[in-house]
Amino acid sequence: MTTLPKGFRGDMANGFNPQDAADLASEDQAHIARRQRLLGPGYRLFYKSPVQISRAKGVFLYDKHGNEYLDAYNNVVSLGHAHPRVVAAIRRQLETLCTHTRYMQEPLLDYAEALIGTFGGELGRNGCAMFTCSGSEANDLALRVARYYTGKTGVIVTSEAYHGNSGAVAAISPSLGKKSALDPYLRTVAAPDSYRLPVAEIGRRMAEDVARQIADLERHGGGLAAFIVDSVFSSDGLYTDPTDVLVPVAEVVRKAGGLFIADEVQSGFGRTGTHLWGHARHKVEPDIVTLGKPMGNGYPVAGLVVRPDLVAEFGATMRYFNTFGGNSVAVAAAQAVLDSIRDEGLMENAAKVGGEILDGLRALQKKYEFVGDVRGAGLYFAVELVKDRDRKVPDMDRALAAVNALRDRRILISATGADAHILKIRPPLVFTSANAARLLEGVDAALRAVQV
Amino acid sequence: MTTLPKGFRGDMANGFNPQDAADLASEDQAHIARRQRLLGPGYRLFYKSPVQISRAKGVFLYDKHGNEYLDAYNNVVSLGHAHPRVVAAIRRQLETLCTHTRYMQEPLLDYAEALIGTFGGELGRNGCAMFTCSGSEANDLALRVARYYTGKTGVIVTSEAYHGNSGAVAAISPSLGKKSALDPYLRTVAAPDSYRLPVAEIGRRMAEDVARQIADLERHGGGLAAFIVDSVFSSDGLYTDPTDVLVPVAEVVRKAGGLFIADEVQSGFGRTGTHLWGHARHKVEPDIVTLGKPMGNGYPVAGLVVRPDLVAEFGATMRYFNTFGGNSVAVAAAQAVLDSIRDEGLMENAAKVGGEILDGLRALQKKYEFVGDVRGAGLYFAVELVKDRDRKVPDMDRALAAVNALRDRRILISATGADAHILKIRPPLVFTSANAARLLEGVDAALRAVQV
Repeated sequence: MTTLPKGFRGDMANGFNPQDAADLASEDQAHIARRQRLLGPGYRLFYKSPVQISRAKGVFLYDKHGNEYLDAYNNVVSLGHAHPRVVAAIRRQLETLCTHTRYMQEPLLDYAEALIGTFGGELGRNGCAMFTCSGSEANDLALRVARYYTGKTGVIVTSEAYHGNSGAVAAISPSLGKKSALDPYLRTVAAPDSYRLPVAEIGRRMAEDVARQIADLERHGGGLAAFIVDSVFSSDGLYTDPTDVLVPVAEVVRKAGGLFIADEVQSGFGRTGTHLWGHARHKVEPDIVTLGKPMGNGYPVAGLVVRPDLVAEFGATMRYFNTFGGNSVAVAAAQAVLDSIRDEGLMENAAKVGGEILDGLRALQKKYEFVGDVRGAGLYFAVELVKDRDRKVPDMDRALAAVNALRDRRILISATGADAHILKIRPPLVFTSANAARLLEGVDAALRAVQV
Repeated sequence: MTTLPKGFRGDMANGFNPQDAADLASEDQAHIARRQRLLGPGYRLFYKSPVQISRAKGVFLYDKHGNEYLDAYNNVVSLGHAHPRVVAAIRRQLETLCTHTRYMQEPLLDYAEALIGTFGGELGRNGCAMFTCSGSEANDLALRVARYYTGKTGVIVTSEAYHGNSGAVAAISPSLGKKSALDPYLRTVAAPDSYRLPVAEIGRRMAEDVARQIADLERHGGGLAAFIVDSVFSSDGLYTDPTDVLVPVAEVVRKAGGLFIADEVQSGFGRTGTHLWGHARHKVEPDIVTLGKPMGNGYPVAGLVVRPDLVAEFGATMRYFNTFGGNSVAVAAAQAVLDSIRDEGLMENAAKVGGEILDGLRALQKKYEFVGDVRGAGLYFAVELVKDRDRKVPDMDRALAAVNALRDRRILISATGADAHILKIRPPLVFTSANAARLLEGVDAALRAVQV
């Protein structure tokens, strides 16, 4: 097996390096050795001291010794672990029927209708829904559709974008690291770094960047198929504001005949507090929206909503079938999630509790000189650590130390950005004010611990 | 929307054409119109008269009027619909924990160990398991690994192969039809058509074909990354015998530095009756095995087992993370499936009941002149319909008529092969002798109905 330098993370923020296992308890060392043997070297654990989990409920995870962890890093079980309504819906459907989309089933259409109805503009009026298992599959399909429709191959993303793990979307995901080959027809643009760029100019700059990359793609014969964007720029470092960035970009993209694809895997399903979909914060109308992670609160379901004219020829001359995508149980889970977000007022909760956390983090920014910037929307936050405030030099070591200091206090978050120097905090949408207070107390203690 | 000629199937055997909706009951017409609007044109229903399904149990499906259908075409819920042990395992796990592979969880390793232990040779001794949501994702990952490891791009498959729906694997799936663009570095070889080729020569011929295509790939600068094969050649027309085909092919592939990938999505998990894995019937040792459909009896779980040296550098310098792949519930479902196959003797049942069906189909071959060939292994069968026995000319019209005649008798099967002239019968592994008798009676009646 390839030997890695001590501390090597394989380009993953907050990844555990098996060569550091000697510092761990012997039972954890044994687990990790077994895991290396059975899962191979492609798998990464979180944290310097990986966490063992046996059960979970709401916003809490528990290890086999009964220790409780506050889960402030989960947008998969976004409604909380073991959410009763979702569990009941899945169980009921499992006992009734689990089959695919080649038979007529009413609930599949009911869910598609409910989902499409959450979008504004043309997608909301006439969009159609297609179902996959994962966000990766959704982005992969969106890319296939865009390339088929436009007859072009070029794609533009932000410089640290992540859009999934299939061959086609890994090749448009620069955040996977330097060893992961990029598509020859991929071009990147800088993320809208509101901490370093003049805020009023960000939209114009990005539109100009995109125009330049389109010209380059045309010069190389690929042309532009699509601009794909996570509207909160999670893997770039989380830039939730300003929100006037994407309209000018979309104009440039459309003028070149490309499609605007909003990847809502991170920003969707109420995460940002004010809008069900991240792109709506920017008042931009995408041609395709892709969905993933929280869609089934852990059940593998994902998909896309697309303007029907874009998929007309693709659909008519080929076909799309995904054995598990849109199966009866996936639909039941997704319907329960959508209903619960509405009935439990989870988006509103994200706005309210998220506001408390954001205030708290800003207070900590005043307290700690090395907290350069705090950003956030709803229940999604970035705390950027720098070596000094004037030069804004990323401080990865301190950020990873803070993440691990929180983990030692049994509060789970992670890090993001090209330099892994940004604390990434993303609690389930059911987070309460009490959970928020506990989180803030923990962040304060962790920052204090890494202050020296 | 693109208007299609009446009867157009979009290159899918047994697909319903919405333009034939006028012949249906008004409630079905309304459903189909709504479905077209909400899911768009990429989705296909089965049969000239699509089937509405509301619930299912064991080998039976039921529509909302309570009509019972015998499901003889299901390798997803391969243990039967709503299998109690699998349902209970999923429910229990949903209530306990559903999280991903970046935390330490014992059951994930226990399942990986049990799965790897089912393979012979080097994979069984030292293989490692990686988890995805779908067979498409598994093949896509296998392809990424093969290309990364070999540094080559070329792929060889059989001429009507299907390996999935992601961009990368759709491009190596000629069965998706002429409009679906193939990878420039894909080459195909003829399937081992035991009905038309001299049986003793098939292995040698295929090895020679593969060698020729490798030479062509090398001539074009791509070289050979992998030969990928479904060892029962499902989408080519199901060629279950002879089983001495793949060893000589693997030799040629390895000599050229390529990997041999066994796609077990169709042939795996006991389907063939005598071996848990289809490739084991050929006594071939693959470098990578990919798994899918029946792995979770409907729960979206899939994956691959790979020689660790092939994934060492890929894993060390990049990483592989799949949000839902290998999550706690997927693992619980997969473990229950593997345990049930063993504890209920389902492979043995497939051999026994499959033998009865094969005998019955061979008797029908004697009875109907247009049944040119009958093939099968375990609970997987092909009944090839021809215009006359001497010239062996495919008879698609009669085959599709037979499929629909069976559907009218509430027995569900489908068609396969480049000319969609082969009845494809693939019941759940829990099929009983009584189910088999009912199926054979139905096939007899349907063949009689299409005899004129």
